[in-house]
Amino acid sequence: MKQFFYPGSVVILGVSPRPGNMGRNILKNLQNMGYAGEIYLVNPKGGELDGLPMHPSVADLPAAPELAVILTPASTVPGLMEDLGAKGCKRVVIESGGFSELESDRGGLEQRIVAAADKYGMRFIGPNCIGVICTDSKVSVPFPLLNRLILPGGLSIMAQSGGIGLTYLHASAEAKVGIAKFCSMGNKLNVNERDLLGYLIEDPQTTAILLYLESIVDGRALYDLIRSTNKPVVVHKSNIGELSHAIASSHTAALANDDAIVDAALKQAGAIRVNTVHECLQVVKGLSLPRPKGRRLAIISRSGGHAVVAADAAYRHNMELPPFPPQYLTPIQEATRASVIKLQNPLDLGDLFKFEIYVDILKGALELEDVDGVVMLHGYRGPEAEPSRKFVAKAGELCREAGKPLALALLVDPEEMLVASELSTIPLFTFAEEAIAALSASEAAGKVGPAGEVSCAGGYDIKMCKQLVGSAGPDGWLELPESLHLLNAAGIPVAPFVAALDPDDAVHAASTLGYPVVLKAVGGDDLLHKTESGGVALGLADEDQLREAAEKMTAKLKPSRLLVMNHIAGGQELILGVKRDPGFGPVVLLGLGGTAAEALGDVSLRLAPVDDQEAGQMMDQLKGARLLKGFRGKPPVNRPALLEAVMRLSILAHDIPAIAELDINPLLAGPGGVLAVDARVRVGGEDSEPAC
Amino acid sequence: MKQFFYPGSVVILGVSPRPGNMGRNILKNLQNMGYAGEIYLVNPKGGELDGLPMHPSVADLPAAPELAVILTPASTVPGLMEDLGAKGCKRVVIESGGFSELESDRGGLEQRIVAAADKYGMRFIGPNCIGVICTDSKVSVPFPLLNRLILPGGLSIMAQSGGIGLTYLHASAEAKVGIAKFCSMGNKLNVNERDLLGYLIEDPQTTAILLYLESIVDGRALYDLIRSTNKPVVVHKSNIGELSHAIASSHTAALANDDAIVDAALKQAGAIRVNTVHECLQVVKGLSLPRPKGRRLAIISRSGGHAVVAADAAYRHNMELPPFPPQYLTPIQEATRASVIKLQNPLDLGDLFKFEIYVDILKGALELEDVDGVVMLHGYRGPEAEPSRKFVAKAGELCREAGKPLALALLVDPEEMLVASELSTIPLFTFAEEAIAALSASEAAGKVGPAGEVSCAGGYDIKMCKQLVGSAGPDGWLELPESLHLLNAAGIPVAPFVAALDPDDAVHAASTLGYPVVLKAVGGDDLLHKTESGGVALGLADEDQLREAAEKMTAKLKPSRLLVMNHIAGGQELILGVKRDPGFGPVVLLGLGGTAAEALGDVSLRLAPVDDQEAGQMMDQLKGARLLKGFRGKPPVNRPALLEAVMRLSILAHDIPAIAELDINPLLAGPGGVLAVDARVRVGGEDSEPAC
Repeated sequence: MKQFFYPGSVVILGVSPRPGNMGRNILKNLQNMGYAGEIYLVNPKGGELDGLPMHPSVADLPAAPELAVILTPASTVPGLMEDLGAKGCKRVVIESGGFSELESDRGGLEQRIVAAADKYGMRFIGPNCIGVICTDSKVSVPFPLLNRLILPGGLSIMAQSGGIGLTYLHASAEAKVGIAKFCSMGNKLNVNERDLLGYLIEDPQTTAILLYLESIVDGRALYDLIRSTNKPVVVHKSNIGELSHAIASSHTAALANDDAIVDAALKQAGAIRVNTVHECLQVVKGLSLPRPKGRRLAIISRSGGHAVVAADAAYRHNMELPPFPPQYLTPIQEATRASVIKLQNPLDLGDLFKFEIYVDILKGALELEDVDGVVMLHGYRGPEAEPSRKFVAKAGELCREAGKPLALALLVDPEEMLVASELSTIPLFTFAEEAIAALSASEAAGKVGPAGEVSCAGGYDIKMCKQLVGSAGPDGWLELPESLHLLNAAGIPVAPFVAALDPDDAVHAASTLGYPVVLKAVGGDDLLHKTESGGVALGLADEDQLREAAEKMTAKLKPSRLLVMNHIAGGQELILGVKRDPGFGPVVLLGLGGTAAEALGDVSLRLAPVDDQEAGQMMDQLKGARLLKGFRGKPPVNRPALLEAVMRLSILAHDIPAIAELDINPLLAGPGGVLAVDARVRVGGEDSEPAC
Repeated sequence: MKQFFYPGSVVILGVSPRPGNMGRNILKNLQNMGYAGEIYLVNPKGGELDGLPMHPSVADLPAAPELAVILTPASTVPGLMEDLGAKGCKRVVIESGGFSELESDRGGLEQRIVAAADKYGMRFIGPNCIGVICTDSKVSVPFPLLNRLILPGGLSIMAQSGGIGLTYLHASAEAKVGIAKFCSMGNKLNVNERDLLGYLIEDPQTTAILLYLESIVDGRALYDLIRSTNKPVVVHKSNIGELSHAIASSHTAALANDDAIVDAALKQAGAIRVNTVHECLQVVKGLSLPRPKGRRLAIISRSGGHAVVAADAAYRHNMELPPFPPQYLTPIQEATRASVIKLQNPLDLGDLFKFEIYVDILKGALELEDVDGVVMLHGYRGPEAEPSRKFVAKAGELCREAGKPLALALLVDPEEMLVASELSTIPLFTFAEEAIAALSASEAAGKVGPAGEVSCAGGYDIKMCKQLVGSAGPDGWLELPESLHLLNAAGIPVAPFVAALDPDDAVHAASTLGYPVVLKAVGGDDLLHKTESGGVALGLADEDQLREAAEKMTAKLKPSRLLVMNHIAGGQELILGVKRDPGFGPVVLLGLGGTAAEALGDVSLRLAPVDDQEAGQMMDQLKGARLLKGFRGKPPVNRPALLEAVMRLSILAHDIPAIAELDINPLLAGPGGVLAVDARVRVGGEDSEPAC
C-alpha cells in the first residue's frame, strides 16, 4: 500500500486544457500541496498544460510512472490499464465512475480491469473514487479542487464515499485536526479497507484512523485488524436501513451488512462507532488532543447554565467530576469581585473575568492529580474579545504542557469562531456536550488489545465433534442425540440422556437415568417442531407414564429413535447459540430464555471465539443480567460454569466452520452449574443466513 | 404577563456612567432595539447619561414606570421593591444575583422581596435573571449587550438560565430564526414557566415556544398548558443527573425532578423534548419552516455518500422516502451530462450542475403530491459559489410558495456558510442528519390536543372508594380486603375473595368460592411481606388443605382476618400502579410482571387520568408488548379489558388525592379479561416519594 502514498512520479490520464476539466484539478492539487516528484500528463491530442508536456499515450511516457491516476470515461479504463501495465506501472487510482454502482458489471468493464491488473501484477484503488492524499510525501490526487490547507498531523481518513471523505477532510482542516493520509475507496474492486487499514496501522505518521464505510467486505479481517492495534479507530458505518440500501448500492456498489453484528464486532474490537457526521467530527477533534488517562473531568464555565448542561453531559457519558481541593479554590475565591458564585466542580466563574487568572485557573485544573481532562466553556463578546483571543491562543500550549486534554468550547458568534480557530492550536468545540462526548470517546478508544489464543482446559474432543458434525442428514440438520453428543464432546454439560430404539428400550434407559424423565421423538415427521406435533412428553414420573407416552409417540410419529432425558426442574432458562455471518464468520449469541425474556429480545452478540472475560461481558451486558446474579431471593447462577459453556461453544463454532448454526435452547443455569436440555445444529457453512 | 413585554415606560435601577456598568448595557439594548417608550434612569448620585437624566431615587421619578429593571446588589433589592411599590410600579425584572442560588434565603432577602410584592400587588421576574425581550414592542432589557440583530418572528424563548437563554437567542439570530418574545426566569421566585407559558400560548406573535428549564415548579400545570396548545413546545430540561444537581441549585436555585416522570409527562403532553443544545437548535430551525403534513420526504443530494447518510437518518427517524414518479425524473435524466447516476429517492445529482435545473428539480420535488418535505444537500466550492448563492437565496421563496418545508443543508466551509446564511431567508443546516431530525420533530410536534374529560361508564362508586381510603391504619396502609374492595368499587375486576374471621369461617367461605383457593393473612405481623413470613398459602385444593393452612397461619401470625381467594391459574402477569409525584401529581405505571420482566424493568408511565387511547399507548409502548398480543401460540390478552382497568385506576388516583400509592401486582391478563389478585394501597398524599 505504501507505494500509493509515496510515489516518486505520478501520471494523470484524462487531463485537458478544456475549462472545467477535472484532471486539471488533480494537477493543481499536486502543485498546491507541493508535490516534488515527477508529474506526467497524458492527452491523446498532445500539447502542453501549465508548462508540462501532454504525452499522446501512456506508451509515449519517458518512464514508467509509479502512480497513475485515471479520470477518463469508464469505457476507456480497461484499455488504459493494459497500457499502464505494459509500461510497467504498478499502482493505479481509478477515479472514473460508471461501473457496477450504475449497473452490474456494465459490459464486463470491471472484469477487464481486474484481468489487466492481474496480468501485470498491478494494484488499484477504485473505480469511482477520489484517490489519495499524503501530507508526508505531499501527494494529493483528488479531482475536486482542495481550497483549504490540509494540515499535517496524525489522523488518517479512509472513506468509501468521496463526498463524505471530503467532508471529513475539510472539516478536519477547519478544526485544526492534522491529517496523515487520506484515501477514498469507491467500489473497492481491488484495494479495500482491509488493505488500507493494515497499512495505516503500521504507518508511523498515523496516530488515529477514521473509516467511513457503506459496506464491509471481509468483516472478520477488519475486526482482527482493529483489534490488533492500540491506535484509536473511529468507524462511521452507514447504509444501515432499507431506505439507504438502494442508494448505497448505486453510489459505491455497497451491499448491506447485518448491522447488529457490525455493531457487536466493532465494539468487541475496541473501535469507536459513530452514527452521524456531526458525532464523528467531535470524536475526531477529541482524538487530536492528548488522550485522557481516566474519566475524571474538571469543568470550568463562564455560564452557570452551560455548567449545568455540561454536568448533565458528564453524567450521560459516565464521567466523574471530582471535587476541587481547597488549595485550588482559595485563590479563585479571593479573585472573585462579588461573591455571587459558589465554588465547586463544575466551576461557575460567574462575573470573574481577568485574563491572567483564567490562565492560572486552567493551568491549575490541568495540574490537579485526580483530573484526567479539563472542559472549559468560554463565552465572550465585545471588549472581552481581545483578552479572550489571547487566552484561546494560549490554551493549546497549556494543554500540551500538561499532557492532558483541554476541550475548549467557545460560546461565540460564528464569525468570532473563525477568528478564534485561526488563533488556536487545538480544536475548538461549540458546546459542552460535544466536548465531553469527544473526551469520553478518546478515553475509551483502543483499549481492547489483540485477541489472545482462546482454548479450553481439556474435555474437548474435537475429532469426535467433527465426526458428529459429519453425520448431518441431507437437509443439513443433525438429529437430537448427535446434537447433544456434540455438546458433550465440546465439554458443554448436557442433561443425562439415552437414545432408545423403541418403548421397551426407553423404559430400560429410564431405569438407569432415574425418574422423572422427558421423552422426545427423533427423526420422525416434523422433526423441528417437536412440541407442537406431540413429539415431546414432559415430566414422566414413572415407568407406566413413560411406556404409555413412548407407545403413543411411536404410533403417531414413527420416529427412528426415542430420546429419554432426565427431567430437570428449576434453573434460569438461557439461550446460547452461534450462527455464521457471511462476512464476520461465527457469531455467538447469549440471551435470556423463557417467553417473557424472548419477547423482550434481550441478547448479546460477539464474534467467536470468546475468552471467559468476553463471555463475562456478554452476560453482564444483558439487560436482565441481574436475574442471573441473585434476584428476588433466587441464588445466583454459577458464573464460571456459564462462561465456560459460552467459551466452549464459541471455540467449537470457530474450529468447525461447517457448523452453520447451533442453538441451545434452553440452557438451564443454576447455582450448581449449567445444563443443556435441547439443541439444534445445522451444518453447511456456505449457505447460512445472517445471525439476527 | 403582557405588561412585562409591552411596558409604556421602563426604569433602570443600577445604571451608572462607570465603565463596565451593566445597567448601561440595558439602556443600549433598549436603544438599539428601537424602544419608543419612556426610559427612566435611577442613580443616587444623580447626573446625566446619554442625554437622559439620572434620578436620585424612585420617588423622584416624574411618573410611575410600567416596568422596572433592577441590577443593584442583592441587599438593596428589598428596599427598592418597597420604593417601586410605593411609586405605583406593578412589574419588575430583578436581574441582580446573590439570593437563594448562593445560600438559602440570605438574610431573609427573598422573603422581604416577596412581602413587598404582595403588599403592592406587584409581579416580578427573577431574581438572578437577564430579563425580557419583545421584538413587537421593542423592549429589550438583558444586561449583556446584544451585538446581533434579533429578527422578529414566531419563536418565543423562556430560559431559566440567562446564559443558555442567550445562547439560544444568538444562535436563533444566526440561523435566521425570528423571535417573538424572550424571557430569562432565574430563581422563579414570583413569575415562573407556568405564568409565562400561559401567556405565550395566547400571544398572537408566538407560533412556537422553546423552554429551557433546570427545575419544574408545578409539573402538572406545565403539562396541562403544553397539552392545551397546538403550538409546538420544545423543552430542554437539564439538571437530570446527580452531577448537575449541586451546580443547578447554586445557579438558579433549581431543585431536581424525577426525570422519568418529566420525560413521560412531556411526551404525553406532546412537547418535543431535546437533550442537548445542538439538538435543540436543529429542532428550532425546523419549526421556523412550514410544518410538514406527513413523514414522506424527498432527498436530493449532490453527493452520493451524503445521500446514503441522509437515507440512514430518515430510517432512524422513521420517515418515508416515496419513489419519484417518471414524469419528475425524465427531465432530470435528460439533463445529466454523463449517465453515471441512477435516479431514485434519495436523488444523487452526481455531476449535474446547472442552476436553472436545480431550481426546477427542487420546485418539482416540493410540488409532488406524496412528498411532505424536501431535504436538499448542496455542496459547492470555487466557481460554483456564485450560482449556488443565487440558488440559496431563491430556496426560501420556493419553500414558502410550496407551503412545504425545505431543509437545505450546505456542505461548505464555515466562511461560505456565513455568506450563504446572509443570503438565505430560511435556516440552513450543516448536515443531512440535522435537517431530517428537525423535520421529524416539526412533523410530530403539538399533535396531542388537550386532555378531554376522562370518565368510565358506570361501575364506579366513588363514595365507597373514598370511604375505603378513609379506613387506612395509622401507618397509612389499607388492609388487603379493603384494598381489593377499593379496586372493586372502582370497577377494576378482582379475583373472587372473602375475608374470614377464623379457620372455620375461611372453610365456609371457600365452599361458596369453590376450590382451589389461596389463603392470605390480614393484619398480622409483617403485613407487607406475606410470602416470606408464611402469610400466604397457594393452591389449596380442598377443605382439609385449607383448614390445615388456616390453622397454621393463625397460630403463627395471629392475623386479625384471613383472606380466601379463588386460585387463578394462567394469564400474563402485569403490574399496574399509581404513585403521586410532588409536582406532577398522580402517575400511572403499567409493566410486565413476573421475575424476568421485572428484572428487565419494562414499564411505561403516564400522568393520570388516562383515557383508553393513552392506556393503549402505554400497553403498546412496552418492549414486551408482543407478549400481550399473542406470542408463541398464546392467545392475545383482552385489550379493552386491560385498557379499562388502566383507565379506571388512573381515574381513581386522580379523583382521590389521598391515595399516595397503589400497586396491583399481579394483575392477571388473559383472553377473557383481567383480574387483580393482590394489591397494596398507601394513603397520605403529602409525604409520598417520587414514583420511580
